[in-house]
Amino acid sequence: MGKGLKIAVIGGGSSYTPEIVEGFIKRYEHLPVRELWLVDIEAGRHKLAIVGELAKRMVAESGLPIEVHLTLDRRAAIEGADFVSTQMRVGLLEARKWDEHIPNAHGVIGQETTGPGGMMKALRTIPVLLDICRDIEELAPQAWLLNFTNPAGMVTEAISRYSSVKSIGLCNAPIGLHKWLGTKYDVPSSKIYTEFVGLNHLHWVTRIEVEGVNRLPELLDKREEYSGKNVPATEWDHEFLQSLGALPSYYLKYFYMPDAMLEEQLEALGKSGTRAEVVKKVEDELFQLYSDPNLREKPKQLEQRGGAYYSEAAVNLMESLYNDKRDIQTLNVANGRTLDFLPADACIEVNCVVTADGPLALPVTRVPEQAKGLIQAVKTYERLAIEAAVTGDRALALQAMVAHPLVPSVRVAKVLLDEMLEKNKAYLPQFFA
Amino acid sequence: MGKGLKIAVIGGGSSYTPEIVEGFIKRYEHLPVRELWLVDIEAGRHKLAIVGELAKRMVAESGLPIEVHLTLDRRAAIEGADFVSTQMRVGLLEARKWDEHIPNAHGVIGQETTGPGGMMKALRTIPVLLDICRDIEELAPQAWLLNFTNPAGMVTEAISRYSSVKSIGLCNAPIGLHKWLGTKYDVPSSKIYTEFVGLNHLHWVTRIEVEGVNRLPELLDKREEYSGKNVPATEWDHEFLQSLGALPSYYLKYFYMPDAMLEEQLEALGKSGTRAEVVKKVEDELFQLYSDPNLREKPKQLEQRGGAYYSEAAVNLMESLYNDKRDIQTLNVANGRTLDFLPADACIEVNCVVTADGPLALPVTRVPEQAKGLIQAVKTYERLAIEAAVTGDRALALQAMVAHPLVPSVRVAKVLLDEMLEKNKAYLPQFFA
Amino acid sequence: MGKGLKIAVIGGGSSYTPEIVEGFIKRYEHLPVRELWLVDIEAGRHKLAIVGELAKRMVAESGLPIEVHLTLDRRAAIEGADFVSTQMRVGLLEARKWDEHIPNAHGVIGQETTGPGGMMKALRTIPVLLDICRDIEELAPQAWLLNFTNPAGMVTEAISRYSSVKSIGLCNAPIGLHKWLGTKYDVPSSKIYTEFVGLNHLHWVTRIEVEGVNRLPELLDKREEYSGKNVPATEWDHEFLQSLGALPSYYLKYFYMPDAMLEEQLEALGKSGTRAEVVKKVEDELFQLYSDPNLREKPKQLEQRGGAYYSEAAVNLMESLYNDKRDIQTLNVANGRTLDFLPADACIEVNCVVTADGPLALPVTRVPEQAKGLIQAVKTYERLAIEAAVTGDRALALQAMVAHPLVPSVRVAKVLLDEMLEKNKAYLPQFFA
Amino acid sequence: MGKGLKIAVIGGGSSYTPEIVEGFIKRYEHLPVRELWLVDIEAGRHKLAIVGELAKRMVAESGLPIEVHLTLDRRAAIEGADFVSTQMRVGLLEARKWDEHIPNAHGVIGQETTGPGGMMKALRTIPVLLDICRDIEELAPQAWLLNFTNPAGMVTEAISRYSSVKSIGLCNAPIGLHKWLGTKYDVPSSKIYTEFVGLNHLHWVTRIEVEGVNRLPELLDKREEYSGKNVPATEWDHEFLQSLGALPSYYLKYFYMPDAMLEEQLEALGKSGTRAEVVKKVEDELFQLYSDPNLREKPKQLEQRGGAYYSEAAVNLMESLYNDKRDIQTLNVANGRTLDFLPADACIEVNCVVTADGPLALPVTRVPEQAKGLIQAVKTYERLAIEAAVTGDRALALQAMVAHPLVPSVRVAKVLLDEMLEKNKAYLPQFFA
Repeated sequence: MGKGLKIAVIGGGSSYTPEIVEGFIKRYEHLPVRELWLVDIEAGRHKLAIVGELAKRMVAESGLPIEVHLTLDRRAAIEGADFVSTQMRVGLLEARKWDEHIPNAHGVIGQETTGPGGMMKALRTIPVLLDICRDIEELAPQAWLLNFTNPAGMVTEAISRYSSVKSIGLCNAPIGLHKWLGTKYDVPSSKIYTEFVGLNHLHWVTRIEVEGVNRLPELLDKREEYSGKNVPATEWDHEFLQSLGALPSYYLKYFYMPDAMLEEQLEALGKSGTRAEVVKKVEDELFQLYSDPNLREKPKQLEQRGGAYYSEAAVNLMESLYNDKRDIQTLNVANGRTLDFLPADACIEVNCVVTADGPLALPVTRVPEQAKGLIQAVKTYERLAIEAAVTGDRALALQAMVAHPLVPSVRVAKVLLDEMLEKNKAYLPQFFA
Repeated sequence: MGKGLKIAVIGGGSSYTPEIVEGFIKRYEHLPVRELWLVDIEAGRHKLAIVGELAKRMVAESGLPIEVHLTLDRRAAIEGADFVSTQMRVGLLEARKWDEHIPNAHGVIGQETTGPGGMMKALRTIPVLLDICRDIEELAPQAWLLNFTNPAGMVTEAISRYSSVKSIGLCNAPIGLHKWLGTKYDVPSSKIYTEFVGLNHLHWVTRIEVEGVNRLPELLDKREEYSGKNVPATEWDHEFLQSLGALPSYYLKYFYMPDAMLEEQLEALGKSGTRAEVVKKVEDELFQLYSDPNLREKPKQLEQRGGAYYSEAAVNLMESLYNDKRDIQTLNVANGRTLDFLPADACIEVNCVVTADGPLALPVTRVPEQAKGLIQAVKTYERLAIEAAVTGDRALALQAMVAHPLVPSVRVAKVLLDEMLEKNKAYLPQFFA
Repeated sequence: MGKGLKIAVIGGGSSYTPEIVEGFIKRYEHLPVRELWLVDIEAGRHKLAIVGELAKRMVAESGLPIEVHLTLDRRAAIEGADFVSTQMRVGLLEARKWDEHIPNAHGVIGQETTGPGGMMKALRTIPVLLDICRDIEELAPQAWLLNFTNPAGMVTEAISRYSSVKSIGLCNAPIGLHKWLGTKYDVPSSKIYTEFVGLNHLHWVTRIEVEGVNRLPELLDKREEYSGKNVPATEWDHEFLQSLGALPSYYLKYFYMPDAMLEEQLEALGKSGTRAEVVKKVEDELFQLYSDPNLREKPKQLEQRGGAYYSEAAVNLMESLYNDKRDIQTLNVANGRTLDFLPADACIEVNCVVTADGPLALPVTRVPEQAKGLIQAVKTYERLAIEAAVTGDRALALQAMVAHPLVPSVRVAKVLLDEMLEKNKAYLPQFFA
Repeated sequence: MGKGLKIAVIGGGSSYTPEIVEGFIKRYEHLPVRELWLVDIEAGRHKLAIVGELAKRMVAESGLPIEVHLTLDRRAAIEGADFVSTQMRVGLLEARKWDEHIPNAHGVIGQETTGPGGMMKALRTIPVLLDICRDIEELAPQAWLLNFTNPAGMVTEAISRYSSVKSIGLCNAPIGLHKWLGTKYDVPSSKIYTEFVGLNHLHWVTRIEVEGVNRLPELLDKREEYSGKNVPATEWDHEFLQSLGALPSYYLKYFYMPDAMLEEQLEALGKSGTRAEVVKKVEDELFQLYSDPNLREKPKQLEQRGGAYYSEAAVNLMESLYNDKRDIQTLNVANGRTLDFLPADACIEVNCVVTADGPLALPVTRVPEQAKGLIQAVKTYERLAIEAAVTGDRALALQAMVAHPLVPSVRVAKVLLDEMLEKNKAYLPQFFA
């Protein structure tokens, strides 16, 4: 990596790109990027041009010797890269709209990363990611693939099981919680220790120590809560939260209070459309801003987008891998022997020490009994869905759908599966050969 | 055991007693019972007298030197016993009625052994069983406790975790399936090999070989099914069953098709009352029959009762333990290292070789991926509920209720828990100290 | 298997063959052999002819419709076979002589199945067995391979790791112990229950129950002992044996008292030569007997040969596999999850229930702490030696030799390895490519 | 810990004390020690006075507000301590002399921490340490016990299995290797990453990365070696080392080349007496120096003593625990799920992230196959010896001695055990009750 790093960002036309560019500029001293390749598909050509030009203006403003390349040629971008990151959406927001709409129409949670919607996203996305991995295996076998593409846990597990690419899954929720705690207690992130148990979008925070003081009981008691922008802020039941003894991911609301969440979804649907439709509007506005040739920095409005801290997470991780920093980050990696009830190759979200050779998962000091059932149930769904995504086997897809805790019965599973596969036909060649 | 065996049957006034008496008579040659103690509580005095006299008449008719003792003194019955079996119902059918009624009233499955109803039964029963175990530890530490009391898996796990008594849980479903297969294929049971994976009332039959021929595909294809009397015979979805690749326990209908099962329950409720109320009627009729001083054998009508083969299962097990028979029986025992995703002390339903020293669990050759999630989810509920039963900790009880896959949300769990604990107050001193 | 079974015996010219022929005759009712193929290599043509004719006379005498085929065409023998058994000796007794001689010359135990000698035997044998497996994979993929070829545990592990053949390793020591106990206590074998923990030729018998009575303390106290013909009957230290709390395999004398055993070997060497040389004489005498055209049965003298009960073990196993007998036999199979300190694919010697689908290893109820170290040490050697046998990697061979507990130092290991590889050059093409 | 820390050093009269005092002075800013209690037994009163006064002079010279207390009252020293460290020698150097002499007399390695000598040290030391733990449990239950007392792995395991004290075992070998590598490659320790696999004094270094470059092949090739002062610098066999693929602890020479090491010991014995006798002389000289009232700093000669870096290791660890530093240190802690072939409560030497809540063991990325046998063999010995130390059970002690890979046979084990127990009688009340 002598002369500086080559980074390839797949889905480089995304509205998130200015974040990651800002990250590279800020951390240049520790992470000397030489070439930044933003790559997208034909359908994203226009967005790539807009956001790519902004990226170039941002770099120019910084005065740093980073070359920004815009391309539709994925292989050129990947060749010899040190890091590849992915932030793409197969089927675009249109597909997400149906992921949310169709379950809702059958009285089921409609959500981008979990439930029947998340499953469809996995079926669409996994084959594309594995295809990218084939390129990396050939053109940049030493590269680290940092995967942000949701459902990040499933995609990362698929990659580690079906390719030889060194891959790590990333989510902004852990870093978001740290930021929130840092503000709340007015301490730097380094003074906060948290322990995560579970899967991507399905974790329990079992330890929260701020400057060595255990703050978990207080946090469970006060019901203040950290939540992402993309999940409604329905309040947790106080008695339940206290007896749970761990801070649940805000995504767990879909599992613990599906009745209230569904109600909220149906109401929102009536008012402003699905979350996909809301996001679509935000994105349009962002690209409007990006087009301004005088804009030379990441606009503040990007933080409304829901994916805050994603790029910070990514740049942190690259920096630690590059510098053998050995700090602790919460990542999505293979379970190994961490959780004794999951297979070694199951992807989990867990604290890791990041060495130059990759992340080493730290042992978890406490696994709440009550988390095990849900973790295993969702992991079972995930493994079946991953295999269905790879094989295009409809019987497996049915088993996956049935296994999902948010799908109430075999009857509903069959209806959803038929309708959703059909609607996603264009993105699921493996099922319609 | 030189001079013949002493057997204590706790809940000896049960309508099932003639079955077990018949079993002892038939197997006398291999299982020489010297003393049979039928013990019940004060509330069961009348039923004990009736069924006890029938037992005496049955033994007299056989001409065998078996002494039948009827008593309300549990300690006398247990003292020096070789085998203790339990078949009791804390709270009687009245409590079962509410186990079924209350969940139904909130749109949830109401069932004796699973769901919120099964949980209440566990909370009522476990402390009583542990109390019996205290007596066995003191008065018959070498005795085997054969536990039929439902929820048999949870009760057996509670005993093995909270007492030193050697205990085995028994269910009639495995033997029932063998009988059904034997009739269907016209072969003796010894020619049939089945493999069970899962928990009590939550198993998948993953191998069915009849005279060495794999009959599982055919059985999954034809949709003929084996079902217990106490579970409605709603038909499995054919496509689902085939993709499942294993024959599910009929209890799994509550998990895979709760919508149809609930509908059936609500309909039945309107017509004939809960299952508890139906059973009450059958029992009344049975005791009517038992009272006939001319009756000297088990009446045919007992087979309608739902617990067919229970006594055959019990006598088989005693015989194998007594004779170091080393045959294979499907039992509820500690997991050990059988299922790699469950703790060693979790009770599972599994094929065992029965030696004089107790059952040795056979390794399972295939665990369907899709079974893991449900097994772990239910086991999580079970472990939390067992601990709640022992401690009377309401917070744990809430977590258990929330963890149950048939309980749709925290909100519903709280409502059910409050209402059901209150209704069971008389039988739950640990929660109302 | 409708019309009777086809059996292929590789190394059919062995002096043991009359044993297995007798076994097939005696068990014909339960194990209907139609074709028995005795196959050997060119160097064994003469012995095959002699013992093969005896086999034909024995079958003729029995009047059973078993066809005996003698051939040097291994593929013809294997094609369509139901069972293949192997009883061969790569390098013949000449190679065994050096396995014993060379270590002795350096003050190390010289033994056929363990120590440096056993390692050489493994290096010679494993490639030949894997070659046979290639034929079975192609010509009889459903066949069971019953492997008697020593070191049986290592060979079986090599097969299960490097081929898809269904293979089981067999040793006569467990059945020999049962025979000895049966005679001692005057009971049939079915009344005896023993539990074996460990590896082939490295086991501890941790339970011995005769008619339900624990006889282990008495057996450890009296110092009576069961020993094979091929291991000197040096007496165990009484205090040690009692504190061990389990009956050690007589092969364990090499590990627990190498000083006395080595002394015994050096003494025997002076008097009658190595064990190989003794065996050579016995074999010559046996073939003299076999040549007698009037001999129509297995001669008594064969029992002196050291491999008593081998054929009984084999026929027992075939019978149980064929009839789904589900009895308990002590076999060499993959560990699975039986011993928690060994990998799943490590071959162990363990009680199994033999079903039509193969053996299922029973859990062990007690593993003596003191056995673990030796088991792991020897298994480590075995795994390294297996890999060396397959790859011909001399560095691995050195690590294997060093890892063996009977090899005292790296210095001695190097000397032994150099000398022994050279002497075995003709049989180790993988090391001399 | 608001007003500064209280530290208790058991065996405070040791010649090592000036090292740790120097450490506290240097790190005062990060580890604010308020009270340093040096405690010793009556027999060490004189040495405590000498070294204690030196400690006071060193602190005075520094000008820091650290109080130094000298006492024979262990309970006063422990009460309310934040950290307790132990550096004692039950039986003094006299006992060590016999640990070395007696085995040598029987042709066996005589060594302070391994072999029969190490076992005797464990039998003497463990009961004393457990007695100290009783005091800590009562008087300072939140304290961390840092255990340097050899055999450090066994003592730490005994504490974690038989007390509730939070304890960590420490050795100077890992830090010594880092120092050696730092000098060799001229880089700070933070640029070096090593991975240790194994037990205390029985580890393999499987990764050595200096500034991100893998230096292991080069280090194995050049045969340069890092060795402690207390182990003879006999050279590794080059071919062996390369095929091993990991850098072995210098203590492993006793296992891999016992012949050469024994020869070296016998030769040294003839010349300068046992290592114990050499150390005795060094110590006498050190105390001579310490007595000088003008000495106000740690004398250079202490580094010859063999325990270099011990105090640096201790102060590093205290600092990381106190400040939740989360750096990586190589420590002796419970295995948990790190090595899959050892029990969870077995003490291993492994890289840990040190948090305020204690060390978290990092997963190991590679376990050399050849290390497993030796690790398990020695751990087996250790577990038996620990149990013997606690119970005084002579049968267990015999099994422990037999299980040790350096003890050649049961016969020798018995002779050694008898002779050594007798010689240690004064320090082994548990065996002579």
